[in-house]
Amino acid sequence: MISAIKKNEKILKSLHTIGTEAVDEIKKQKNPSVDIPLRNLSNVNFNPKKAIIEMGKATQAREFFNIGMAKKYMQTFLVAEKCKDVLDEGKTVSIRDLYYMSKSTIPGTSENTFDEQDESDPIIEDLEVTADALREELGLYASNKGAMVGEITLRDMGDTIDGRRMGSGGWSIPSICEPNIIQFKRCDAKFILLVEKDAVFRRLNEDKFWKSHKCILLTGGGQPPRGLRRLLYRMVNELKIPLYTYVDNDPWGYYIYSVVKQGSINLAYESVRMAVPQARFIGLRSLDKEKYKLPDNVTIKLEDEDIKRAKQILEYPWFQKKGWQEEIKTMLKLGYKMEQEALSRRSISFVSEEYLPKKLKDKDFLD
Amino acid sequence: MISAIKKNEKILKSLHTIGTEAVDEIKKQKNPSVDIPLRNLSNVNFNPKKAIIEMGKATQAREFFNIGMAKKYMQTFLVAEKCKDVLDEGKTVSIRDLYYMSKSTIPGTSENTFDEQDESDPIIEDLEVTADALREELGLYASNKGAMVGEITLRDMGDTIDGRRMGSGGWSIPSICEPNIIQFKRCDAKFILLVEKDAVFRRLNEDKFWKSHKCILLTGGGQPPRGLRRLLYRMVNELKIPLYTYVDNDPWGYYIYSVVKQGSINLAYESVRMAVPQARFIGLRSLDKEKYKLPDNVTIKLEDEDIKRAKQILEYPWFQKKGWQEEIKTMLKLGYKMEQEALSRRSISFVSEEYLPKKLKDKDFLD
Repeated sequence: MISAIKKNEKILKSLHTIGTEAVDEIKKQKNPSVDIPLRNLSNVNFNPKKAIIEMGKATQAREFFNIGMAKKYMQTFLVAEKCKDVLDEGKTVSIRDLYYMSKSTIPGTSENTFDEQDESDPIIEDLEVTADALREELGLYASNKGAMVGEITLRDMGDTIDGRRMGSGGWSIPSICEPNIIQFKRCDAKFILLVEKDAVFRRLNEDKFWKSHKCILLTGGGQPPRGLRRLLYRMVNELKIPLYTYVDNDPWGYYIYSVVKQGSINLAYESVRMAVPQARFIGLRSLDKEKYKLPDNVTIKLEDEDIKRAKQILEYPWFQKKGWQEEIKTMLKLGYKMEQEALSRRSISFVSEEYLPKKLKDKDFLD
Repeated sequence: MISAIKKNEKILKSLHTIGTEAVDEIKKQKNPSVDIPLRNLSNVNFNPKKAIIEMGKATQAREFFNIGMAKKYMQTFLVAEKCKDVLDEGKTVSIRDLYYMSKSTIPGTSENTFDEQDESDPIIEDLEVTADALREELGLYASNKGAMVGEITLRDMGDTIDGRRMGSGGWSIPSICEPNIIQFKRCDAKFILLVEKDAVFRRLNEDKFWKSHKCILLTGGGQPPRGLRRLLYRMVNELKIPLYTYVDNDPWGYYIYSVVKQGSINLAYESVRMAVPQARFIGLRSLDKEKYKLPDNVTIKLEDEDIKRAKQILEYPWFQKKGWQEEIKTMLKLGYKMEQEALSRRSISFVSEEYLPKKLKDKDFLD
């Protein structure tokens, strides 16, 4: 069968280079080693110019003739080999599959190449930074989550997906949204709206909000998964349309927005291919209760955990803009949070008929 | 805007009856009351003839002039009223929305009609059994999960969804799969395959297993959500094709199969509209490691929790068939479990090219 996944020659070459360099070193009777960019906190920082959280330039040599490194050296090459197999076959596999594929018992011993997936996952991350490739470019995926509808037509593994004809369910966003699998065809959307909760997504889709407001509507069901983030990045950069983020009014909502916009500290190396610094925050905001006349009883008292988290977020360098400082301090002062569903207290379609249209019209965004 | 959701007149009538009966009782100066079927364990049993877990006939009167019941009586009518509004408007809302919609403060007091969603959720369940309607028929949804591809064309809120052209993502299965929203159009599938893990779904979809084997492929990403179960029920009963369930080889996998087939104890009242007693279990089975030549190191030792759960399942009346007793005892004897991804140890597409085709050819199912 011919695969509908186009081969990514750049990545294959990158993996090949890692292998041939090792062979060269062996031939020269050197100690074979790979330079692996450091993924720890000391090598992560916020780049205010690019407005993303990114990795620094520090690397560490992983050597074969080194008792503390020999096993990881072997594991790095095993994972690279299996990724190459996956790409050569024009397929994709989960990181769990890759663990099983790379697992074997060394003949004559009871020693396994990998005992648990928590050994192979960090090696995958090492390989991502070394080969300068996202795991998705290496043909690996984590879990599937999220849905999309709206004014866009795209190709997914050769099939045409029309976002305008996706019913109530929507197109299930795949875990790999790389250009060799997903290509954008026709876009009539003026903007992208990411909503936190799938209940709100359903409401907006049922009301055909994407049609009346010419947009693309997505949900990740909470913190957006990698596939969705990559898709957002590609849409914003390739289709040149703005992205608005609509989340709960709580520190978790702020954080969802922040990961979409700047990337995360733990996976800083992804930011360059996933973060969308152009993203804007459309709500819920702390003053929306007053502005949109919601009753007192739809608010939820902040818990200690919320207060602690809000104070942490207040300190992040990427939340230092005046608007954000005011927003977070207002939440702390008011002492409550609100969920997106609280708007239903006004009326079932209040969110699609009044709240969002007014926000968009007034350009009432936080940046 | 005209709603693409057809009104369910039967349910509206059912809600209306609950209301008019109360009015009649008031006019007759009786103590108004609603007979609510009992949802507790004492009223749940396994019906061996129908092969589903179902509710008995016991009910309890919920009275207005009764200090212990007055608040719940009021709440029951509030929820019924809001559901009627939702249906009248031709919309759907989440159970969280419904909580906010029904929440208000009684004038002149600080008393709320509902303080938390854990008060409104049981009232919804009461109303489901009283009106003899699933919550989805009342226009309510929980969360969205799962994807589908394959040899079927359906209509979803007026849009045509062709399962053969859904790319790598698939159609995102909506939380409400009732006939007023989803209608089946053309089915070329000979069977339905439900897979536990979305990684396996992706593998089978990438290999176009549904095309080569003429089937419909679904995943719920673990325990299938209500929407998916309802869709399975409707497909099996309306399209008259068999359903095979493919899960991990562990007690959790057995349980996923069992909920799909017989329903669950906690939500026994759903079984009659969701359970699929025709469902068959295709794997993973405990002897598959040997049969399909998997190495020792892909198995995972049973934990105490697994052993305890397997022993519980062994006692369930619906697992008393000889095949199942052998299956579960074999797992306990071997002392290990296996994941679907373990098959990748043989080769990336082993599951779609060898394992499942052989199982289907040999009719190697458990019933």
